[in-house]
Amino acid sequence: MAVYTEISDEELDVFLEAYDLGRVLSYKGIAEGVENSNYLLQTEAGTFILTLYEKRTKPEDLPFFLALMDHLAGAGFACPTPIHGRDGAALRELAGRPAAIVSFLNGVWPRRIQPHHTQALGDAMARMHLAGAGFNQTRANDLSLAQWRPLFEEVSDRADEITPGLGEVIGAELDALDSHWPTDLPTGIIHADLFPDNVFFLGGEFSGIIDFYFACTDSYAYELAICLNAWCFEPDNSFNITKARAMLGAYTKVRPLEAGELTAITWLARGAAMRFLLTRLYDWFHQPEGALAARKDPREYLAKLRFHQGLSGPGAYGLDG
Amino acid sequence: MAVYTEISDEELDVFLEAYDLGRVLSYKGIAEGVENSNYLLQTEAGTFILTLYEKRTKPEDLPFFLALMDHLAGAGFACPTPIHGRDGAALRELAGRPAAIVSFLNGVWPRRIQPHHTQALGDAMARMHLAGAGFNQTRANDLSLAQWRPLFEEVSDRADEITPGLGEVIGAELDALDSHWPTDLPTGIIHADLFPDNVFFLGGEFSGIIDFYFACTDSYAYELAICLNAWCFEPDNSFNITKARAMLGAYTKVRPLEAGELTAITWLARGAAMRFLLTRLYDWFHQPEGALAARKDPREYLAKLRFHQGLSGPGAYGLDG
Repeated sequence: MAVYTEISDEELDVFLEAYDLGRVLSYKGIAEGVENSNYLLQTEAGTFILTLYEKRTKPEDLPFFLALMDHLAGAGFACPTPIHGRDGAALRELAGRPAAIVSFLNGVWPRRIQPHHTQALGDAMARMHLAGAGFNQTRANDLSLAQWRPLFEEVSDRADEITPGLGEVIGAELDALDSHWPTDLPTGIIHADLFPDNVFFLGGEFSGIIDFYFACTDSYAYELAICLNAWCFEPDNSFNITKARAMLGAYTKVRPLEAGELTAITWLARGAAMRFLLTRLYDWFHQPEGALAARKDPREYLAKLRFHQGLSGPGAYGLDG
Repeated sequence: MAVYTEISDEELDVFLEAYDLGRVLSYKGIAEGVENSNYLLQTEAGTFILTLYEKRTKPEDLPFFLALMDHLAGAGFACPTPIHGRDGAALRELAGRPAAIVSFLNGVWPRRIQPHHTQALGDAMARMHLAGAGFNQTRANDLSLAQWRPLFEEVSDRADEITPGLGEVIGAELDALDSHWPTDLPTGIIHADLFPDNVFFLGGEFSGIIDFYFACTDSYAYELAICLNAWCFEPDNSFNITKARAMLGAYTKVRPLEAGELTAITWLARGAAMRFLLTRLYDWFHQPEGALAARKDPREYLAKLRFHQGLSGPGAYGLDG
């Protein structure tokens, strides 16, 4: 939940002079999303999302994110489309922040995940991976293996405040991940933050994916691993193999997995759990000034990590290894 | 800034079965307003505001507020109109809270107040007072003179934490207000919370007033006194007589003031400053659990109170006394 940057009606009027969107009818800060300031903007031309990019999103990455959305939308994938000004630019500045307007995507994100949601997610994710294949830009994943240890070092002395022994568990797992992290998997554009609040449904049907501000070039199977963590655990942290099977089955119908992806999935799932465990841990101790976001419990991802650590192969995810 | 109550897509679908609004296209929590949870709701029938009423709004008052909006809208005044379900009811329950849907009002609230805003406000306020005259319900102002001392008593032992001597200033002013509070003024329906964020403009023109959840029966001139405080001081707490004159002039063109209202205005302005000083002071020490609102500085209203205390008559507001 975040509106970090307030914008005035006068600043907005000046900003919109660069676009052909007509007059402002209303704009209201949205109380969702934790990274950037989002406004629901209504003009004579329709409904849009106006985003002001805050600290965590690097300005130099923004052209990549916006071009990716342009590419995916152009390839027929349901996602917000950047609105370009009369000068052709989609990215400009507002209230001292980089800012962009994107099209509004109808739909609501599912609060209580059902297998039909994970099935639709698997299908959409595979289509997104295929649609991204024609995109000619790359961006390294800056929240992957190489960044986890430095991230941990910033909070390692306080990790045990969350739960006793947490520091030791993370240290040992980082060693294990260093030794076993899969390479040579098929890579391409992944969303890298495909949590339920970024996936919209309308009348039970998938309607689109939003928030591409972690998108990067990484292994496709790592995206699946993130979604195993984000979509297939119950609120009590038990794993729901029915949801996993539905997601993986729908995915592989569109983009079959290679043998190497199947055998790597357990380590990828451990890595994905580690990535969100570490960023939640970091955020727990570094709540940004003025942030209005509720802190997310890192222990949820410790429980998920422990589940993956106990597995011997991909069968537990509903995959034949 | 507040979404206190999260609602699920499934709860919302069930809730909307009582209405003829078609299918949900999206709903997003709005990061404005501090009292209730507001969602911007888009359905096949259009755009609406869905409000879940939180603790501070008494459930027994809700029928009054909703009927008032119905009345004012029916009298041609620009304000949200409650949407009635197929059973005729505008008020029902969602996520364990009283909840209602109202029509969406185009417009943006002015961040930097100009005299043309206060002029439009004065005109709209007077028209609202006249439109409310035909409303057949009443509600006592439960944040007026009789409630100020009990409210102060809840925080008096901590008032000096805000600024040394504050407790003494408030105590003395409450005594003075007890002795001088005007009675026998023309009364009727007032909004009682006419701050800039509740007054919308579109292309420089007044477009409507929202958030009637403090509306009550009180003296019309007290509403003017609230607005002198809320609209006519600069960010450095200096008083801008041009803005006051514009507001009062436009108001009196529509609804002339009686002599008693003119002579009472200084005490009403002191009382209005006291009301917001006290609620801000109370809120400072009682930030509600889960509130995402930034606390508002009580000292702003101490400065305004001191300005009014130094006046000898209504001339300083641009009124001929």
